[in-house]
Amino acid sequence: MLEDKNKQRTSLSELGEFGLITHLTENFKIYNKSTQKGIGDDCAVIAQTEKEILVTTDLLVEGVHFDLSYVPLKHLGYKAIMVNLSDVYAMNAEAEQVTVSIAVSNRFPLEAIEELYAGIQLACDTYNVDLIGGDTTSSTKGMLISVTALGAAKKEDIVYRSGAKPTDLIVVSGDVGGAYLGLQVLEREKEVFKVNPQNQPDLEAYTYLIERQLKPEARKDIPRLLKDLEVKPTAMIDISDGLSSEIMHICIQSGVGCNIYEEKLPLDPQVISTCEEFDIDSTMVALSGGEDYELLFTISINDFDKIKGNPNLTVIGHVTEKNQGMNLVTRANQQIKLQAQGWNSFSE
Amino acid sequence: MLEDKNKQRTSLSELGEFGLITHLTENFKIYNKSTQKGIGDDCAVIAQTEKEILVTTDLLVEGVHFDLSYVPLKHLGYKAIMVNLSDVYAMNAEAEQVTVSIAVSNRFPLEAIEELYAGIQLACDTYNVDLIGGDTTSSTKGMLISVTALGAAKKEDIVYRSGAKPTDLIVVSGDVGGAYLGLQVLEREKEVFKVNPQNQPDLEAYTYLIERQLKPEARKDIPRLLKDLEVKPTAMIDISDGLSSEIMHICIQSGVGCNIYEEKLPLDPQVISTCEEFDIDSTMVALSGGEDYELLFTISINDFDKIKGNPNLTVIGHVTEKNQGMNLVTRANQQIKLQAQGWNSFSE
Repeated sequence: MLEDKNKQRTSLSELGEFGLITHLTENFKIYNKSTQKGIGDDCAVIAQTEKEILVTTDLLVEGVHFDLSYVPLKHLGYKAIMVNLSDVYAMNAEAEQVTVSIAVSNRFPLEAIEELYAGIQLACDTYNVDLIGGDTTSSTKGMLISVTALGAAKKEDIVYRSGAKPTDLIVVSGDVGGAYLGLQVLEREKEVFKVNPQNQPDLEAYTYLIERQLKPEARKDIPRLLKDLEVKPTAMIDISDGLSSEIMHICIQSGVGCNIYEEKLPLDPQVISTCEEFDIDSTMVALSGGEDYELLFTISINDFDKIKGNPNLTVIGHVTEKNQGMNLVTRANQQIKLQAQGWNSFSE
Repeated sequence: MLEDKNKQRTSLSELGEFGLITHLTENFKIYNKSTQKGIGDDCAVIAQTEKEILVTTDLLVEGVHFDLSYVPLKHLGYKAIMVNLSDVYAMNAEAEQVTVSIAVSNRFPLEAIEELYAGIQLACDTYNVDLIGGDTTSSTKGMLISVTALGAAKKEDIVYRSGAKPTDLIVVSGDVGGAYLGLQVLEREKEVFKVNPQNQPDLEAYTYLIERQLKPEARKDIPRLLKDLEVKPTAMIDISDGLSSEIMHICIQSGVGCNIYEEKLPLDPQVISTCEEFDIDSTMVALSGGEDYELLFTISINDFDKIKGNPNLTVIGHVTEKNQGMNLVTRANQQIKLQAQGWNSFSE
């Protein structure tokens, strides 16, 4: 049989706003009994009688936060959910609901929006999160995604940024720096493609980095692991803007200082080899890279035995008195001041 | 003393994202004890032990939902909150929290964003709502505002769209059509201004209409009034997309029909006179205008005595069996089918 080479393109105006929302969301499942009412009324309704509710929101803008020349729409939808769930897990809570609003220009056919929602649905199904609302509208330029995530936790389980105490250990999940390097690789390939569109990139050496950038996973497992280990962090935050700036948030809000040890920073072998190839300092990448969506937390030193040797967790330093400052201790045993070089979307 | 004619313009990149959020939100107050933690952590935290939580979200896009050539930024901020609170009141609930995310291009100086937030703050202060989070980022073009509102109500007080029953009365708060005509007046003045920028418009005859368009008020008072009157609506919705399409939502979700009486539609005198001036049918404007942010609800006919004569409420029709259809009964006593001509942002 002959294949139809004309990919189907349905214009958004044919469906209209209500038709579009219904069409995009009809296959989503409800996983949480706290979701009393999802899409279809003026508001969604949530019932949490014994837990407090966590709320977080993030905005992703085409040309600022993502580049559709190398970010597949399905991955984008998935990532938009992850970015928000990560903030819920960073409170030591379970994520249960999301709302998703999108603005898209008429250059996007229905099939593109379906791809985006396929990623959103995959994320919801994988993380057992309910899509309970949203808004879908046109934009004059490009695509924008606004997600709000809701979660729940018992009052006594919630962990804020402000509880770190001197002598606490500073712990990070997974490894850091990969997502930033993945972006560098993708940006380089984009430039190569501009010069020679026939070039087939060999990305074999960067698969982990590219996955960290395009399809990050939020650490739903960490609050559960900590509960199993009977460890309640004293402070916690997710690493979206870079390890260094997140450590500083915890220190400032807790009124403490810290020492972070360069030699302890958890780096994937691909991070090390790619830093060498790009001739950039892996410590700088680990501290300032951002978008890793790992969790950073502090625990009482008395809990050290409980987490020791766990492959998901690395102790990278300890909390000090505030007057000691926030420092990186280098491999040469020099103390240098930590600097927040988190990302600023407004800088040119 | 000489006045400095150079209005101060501070670029957003000077402050950065964190500095900007802190600067914009530092004067907001917390009104509700359900707000355990507002801005400043990975998530906000809400505690509602005896009530269910309502969640709604809306996206406003420059060039699609608003035109900054005649919408002052302060009004825009106010309206962005109203649009969302209206959805919470439409569930017969109290609004308690909002998150506000904005994307703005670098053409906006800090002072413009401050104006926007002044309107958001005025809305929060007037309606006793807490700003608990948000995101602030740059855009490649224009301004976009994404608001999520949260509310609370006892389970037994929540009113959905789906409970209307035959013989119920259909009631609307306030009057309808004003916001749409306000937009027509503003659009006309914009065209006049393009031709003759020196022209000073005389908008005296349209003050109510323009206020309805630029500074709508959500009907916080209606759920309270209904409680005082001991009336629980059987179904309720807010009128954002036009009376006709909202009535149809209630009918379809409740599995009923309706008769709406043309002569009962509540119209402000400015609506009537401006419809004559623009030579458009006031009934069409009332049914399809949209953006009135009034509440439309159904009540048991047994409750009629409780609401009779209330200046805030007008009975405009009644619910029928589904097979009777959804009809407008004209002044000439003809039945014509209601049509949803709600606004579709995707149509060109």
